[in-house]
Parts: sequence; structure tokens; C-alpha cells
Amino acid sequence: MSLQLSLGARVRKSPFFDACCKAGLAAASVYNHMYMPTSYGDPVAEYERLVNGVAMWDVAVERQVALKGPDALALARILTPRNLDGLQIGQGKYVPICNYQGYLINDPVLLQIDDYEIWLSIADSDIGLWASAVAGTLGLDVTVFEPDVSPLAVQGPKAVEVVAALFGDWVRDLRYFGFRLTEIDGIPVVVARSGWSKQGGFELYLRDGRRGTDLWNIVAAAGAPFGIGPGSPNYIERVESGLISYGADTDVFTTPFEMGLGRFIDLTQPVEFIGKKALIALKEAGVRRRFVGLKIDGPAFERPSENRYDVLFNGANAGFVSAAAYSPRIGSNIAVAMVLVAAIEAGTGVDVITNDGVRHATIVDLPFC
Amino acid sequence: MSLQLSLGARVRKSPFFDACCKAGLAAASVYNHMYMPTSYGDPVAEYERLVNGVAMWDVAVERQVALKGPDALALARILTPRNLDGLQIGQGKYVPICNYQGYLINDPVLLQIDDYEIWLSIADSDIGLWASAVAGTLGLDVTVFEPDVSPLAVQGPKAVEVVAALFGDWVRDLRYFGFRLTEIDGIPVVVARSGWSKQGGFELYLRDGRRGTDLWNIVAAAGAPFGIGPGSPNYIERVESGLISYGADTDVFTTPFEMGLGRFIDLTQPVEFIGKKALIALKEAGVRRRFVGLKIDGPAFERPSENRYDVLFNGANAGFVSAAAYSPRIGSNIAVAMVLVAAIEAGTGVDVITNDGVRHATIVDLPFC
Repeated sequence: MSLQLSLGARVRKSPFFDACCKAGLAAASVYNHMYMPTSYGDPVAEYERLVNGVAMWDVAVERQVALKGPDALALARILTPRNLDGLQIGQGKYVPICNYQGYLINDPVLLQIDDYEIWLSIADSDIGLWASAVAGTLGLDVTVFEPDVSPLAVQGPKAVEVVAALFGDWVRDLRYFGFRLTEIDGIPVVVARSGWSKQGGFELYLRDGRRGTDLWNIVAAAGAPFGIGPGSPNYIERVESGLISYGADTDVFTTPFEMGLGRFIDLTQPVEFIGKKALIALKEAGVRRRFVGLKIDGPAFERPSENRYDVLFNGANAGFVSAAAYSPRIGSNIAVAMVLVAAIEAGTGVDVITNDGVRHATIVDLPFC
Repeated sequence: MSLQLSLGARVRKSPFFDACCKAGLAAASVYNHMYMPTSYGDPVAEYERLVNGVAMWDVAVERQVALKGPDALALARILTPRNLDGLQIGQGKYVPICNYQGYLINDPVLLQIDDYEIWLSIADSDIGLWASAVAGTLGLDVTVFEPDVSPLAVQGPKAVEVVAALFGDWVRDLRYFGFRLTEIDGIPVVVARSGWSKQGGFELYLRDGRRGTDLWNIVAAAGAPFGIGPGSPNYIERVESGLISYGADTDVFTTPFEMGLGRFIDLTQPVEFIGKKALIALKEAGVRRRFVGLKIDGPAFERPSENRYDVLFNGANAGFVSAAAYSPRIGSNIAVAMVLVAAIEAGTGVDVITNDGVRHATIVDLPFC
């Protein structure tokens, strides 16, 4: 199915939108009420740049939810089951967020900007509404708002060279999710070692939406010697790497335990975070299904899947595939899927109802590579 | 700018998606994490059908947030500044929702389904998160969830004939926002007199997502004698009618008073609804800007605007246009805009920075027709 994307004022354009168009943007989706670039028309080159070179991505859709005020940290502790003891300015943390039933409603990266300000770099749901409802109802002394911040990702094995050329060698010493507030050519940014790939890289959080094209051009120029080119969060690489796409891989009953995020959930801390009681019960009950990899038999898929695929075990529904594609690095069709534990433990694989017919699949651990 | 819409599992397809594609769907956007049809490739015919005949629209993106349990009504009263005294099963109400600061975060239609169940038929923001955060934090005895409900709109002056042919003459007696739970050919629906146009019509809330194509085909067949055809919420008609598009016309500081919704805000009721204190202060302070219509000089715009346009008064920023198009019925370029009261009261009009250059505009009351 081929559809044109309607553009209008309800969905926002990123500060990098004009630069992306100039770079040949061909397709987009919508994420956090903003257009998200998804293709520049050459998926093979985009994948190659990410895996073997360096790519730049407009990921302004990773909107920030700022918690600012004396109770910022108190609110953050209530919002996530992760233990935030020892949180440091300059070191981000991946913080699953659950509702009162213990189900995942987002999985942001948390950045403490200063003593009274925390940002959540969010996936695709309105966590600003969630957080401000909690803050308001509890009467906390904190303001919740969306700051003027838009990440530009530089991803791939050569990303570090590009970012070091721009900012200096100190970026090489940043730990994963480490970050620093700085500027370049008068453009305020956060330089963070992060990004939605496993190819290494950085995210430059633009802190002045008027300077999107300027920052894009600066990165493009610094990356030119390394063959930088435009790209976007990559469908195939994310499956290979087993990265979670909130909303695609999850449904309204997905728990952090099913997603393999149990190590981020501290049920013994004294904090009365949201979902604690439910998560204790869910952990006690054990998981019924798990997020796993699949190697799918048969000829290579011609393009990434557009729909969820049903997973069958002994003819009965046993879950769903949320993304499937042919992986050049694995040399096989691969997928990420939510599958019943009973089917996983049987060890005989599952069937997947693909657009190309029913295919047998072997269950494997994530990541693929 | 022409972009392809990327399709993937993160954004959901409506139960009517296949039927829409078969009917020639050409373009879509995303709304409430679901694809929203926006064009079947013939905007003139789609407008004509809506204004002079009858059109059918997949508006499944109007997701329902169900509040179910003994505290459902108590939660609804906390969520909206509108007075819900006298709420009746079978009679919907338009209920602006504000945050603790008094700013609009959605403007749903509320339907009380039974004593313990209320639905909010929402605009484009995750009110399910907002409502469940409030319910959970207050410890209310209510479950907040998204039911399997997807509206199909039948709009236009001949809509009543189509819906009466399907359901019987009782539909003619429904008041605006009146509704009834019923079924057709075994398909459970809600028949409501509502819809996002001022051309009259109904919304059939499909209550079984497996039956989308069936319901679509039933409506298409019943509408054939009346010349029914596919359409979508109409850009030009909504400007003519001055309908509010949450997210397009509003920003994060928009109050219900600015949008002309003061008559729905009851600050004297005893209920301690969210935002009450802030709204009292905002009302006292008076509005600085208002949502108005503009008649824009110059040659007809070739197509609806894709971006917000800045509004200038005496050379200084005085607001923004959120939608602008040439209206065949008005015979002029028209727009909806948020404009400073000072500029409105000067009575000399404003300037609009359009894609076709700076144009002078006259301020008029909404609706245009």
C-alpha cells in the first residue's frame, strides 16, 4: 500500500525538517505529534552507512519532557520503577515507565540536567500528560513542560570521529548515556553518547529550534570526510540489535518483565513508585510471554513488514511479530516477536503468518548481532 | 513537499483501513497513533459530497477512552470544567479538558453508556494516560481503558436519509450528540448524531473491530441511491464552519476562553475539577488573544496551507493562522487564526505571511457559514 503523507499544522515539523527535505527526504511517519523521517529513498545505502560508516538522523521526535523545580527528582522517582539512587548530572539512565497496573507506557532515557531539572527523552506516547497529571494531583512543586530541544543523531562506527572533530576528544571518554551541555558555533546543544542503534554514536540535542538547519549543515560538513549521509532509525538494524520500539513491540498489557527489562525494576527500594504493587504481583506470577528473536525460513522478504504478523504454535495463536525483514548481516529473514513462554520452551519453533504465506521460524535470543 | 507515508506496526490501522484502500485512499496522516484517511485524490468531489450530498469517513482515530466502575462519573467530573449535572445515558456532551494550569489538553465528546461506564471520544492527545494517572493517583474505583470502538462518520445534508434507511426513522429524532446502542446485521454499533462538520450527520461507532469492512459496505450500499462516496474530515469545510482542531489551532498555552468555549466552563459548581483555580484566575485576567476567522485578500490559494502562518499587526507578531484555504462557498480565501485581542479591537485587520507572500486580512466572527 502506498499513501501520501498529508501535511498540516496539527503535526509539527522538526527544526531539521527543511534540511531533511533538501537532503532528499522521501518518506516519513508521525511520532509524538511530529513528522519523523523514515527514508531518503535508498534503503541499502542508508543501512550500509549506519553499519559500516556514519549516518545523521533527524530524531527530533524524541521529545523531551522536562521536570523542573524542587520536586523534580521526587517526581522522577515516582514515575519509574528504576532505582534512581546515585543519579548524576551528566549521566543518563534508561527508565521504563509503567502505569498503576504495571504495564509499560513508555521507555525514556532520563537526563538530569541540573539539581532541579530532569528531562525524559521519550518514546511515542504523551508522557508529558502522564507526568503532569501525577505532579498536579499530588501537589508536587515541579513544572512539567516540553523544552525547545530536538535531538540529531550521529550513528555508526565512524560517528565518534565526526563528533570528536566537532567537539573535541573529550567526547571519546563519554560513557554510554553520558552527556554534556555545550555549544558549537553559538548553537546550544547537549552532546550525549546514545542513539537508537547498536552501531555506536551520539545524539546532539539541539537546544534552540531556530538553529536546526545550521546544526544539520555543521554536522554534514564535519562528516563529509567520513562519508556521512542522511538516514533514520533503521528498520533492519533495530531488529538485528533487538532494540525495543515502544508501541510497535508492546501492547497495552506489556510488562517490563516480558520485554527483558527486569534488571531495571527495583521492587525493594523504599520509593512508592507508580505500579509498585502491581509489578510485585506480576513478578511473583511470572511471565506468560516474552520478547524474542525469530529466524524465519524461506526466501528473503522483499521489504520490511508493514503489519504485525500472527504467531502460531500447534495451530493456536501464540503471539505476534512486530517487525520482520531480511537481514544482510545474518543472511536470513529475522524478526522480533512477543511469544508465549509455552511455545518458546517447547523448542520446536513457531509458525508466522506473513504476507508471503505461513513460514516456520526458530526462536532465538536477542540481539541477533 | 510530497512525502510518502511509512507504514509499520507502531501506528495502527483502523478497522476500516482495507475498505478505505479499496475505495481509493490516496493520503493519510496519523492521529491518536492510528492512520487517519485525509484524501481519496479528488478534493473537489469530496467537498461537494459533504456540502451537497453525503460522504462516509473513517474516523476511527477518534479513539474512545472508557471510564468504567463505580467512580466513573466522579472521575469524569474531575476531568472536565463542564458541569455534568443532569448527564443522561444517550445524550453526549462536548467536554473541554484542561490541565492544572487551565490550558486545553483535549476537547472530547463525552458519552455516558450506562450507570458505570463513560466514554470520551477524544481529539489527538493521550487522554487515556491523563485520566488513568488521575484515577490511579487519587485511588478512584474506576478502570480507564481503550475499548474496541471505531467511529465511521456519515456526513452531509443527505446523511440522515442514509442512516434512517439503515436504522429506521427514530434516528431523525436524535438530538445533536444524542446516541443509542444498537446493531445492524449483527454488528454492534452506537448511532450518534454527531460528526466533525456542520453539514449534519451521524457517527456509527463500530463496537467490534473485526467487522469494519462489513459496516463500511453496508453504509456504502445504503448510501448508493444518495450518491454517497468516501471522504474525510474536510479541511475547507472545517474552516468555513470554524470547527476547532485540537493541536492545530491550539498550543500549550491555549485556554478554553481564548477558543470561545467559556460557555462550557462552570467555575461556580462545587466540583473540584482539575484546573479550577487556574481557570478562575484566567477568567479574571481576561483573554489576551482569541480564535477568530480571517478573510484573506488576494488571488485564491491553490491548496490548503501546510504550515501555520504568522500573523502581523503593525509589523509585530500578533498570532498565527492554523488553517487557510480558498472557500468556494464564501468566494474568498479564509482562515482560522489565534489573534491578539489588541489587534482584533483595532479593527483595521492584520497581515498574514502566507506561502504566497504577505497578504492583508479582515477579522471576522466564526463560523463563516
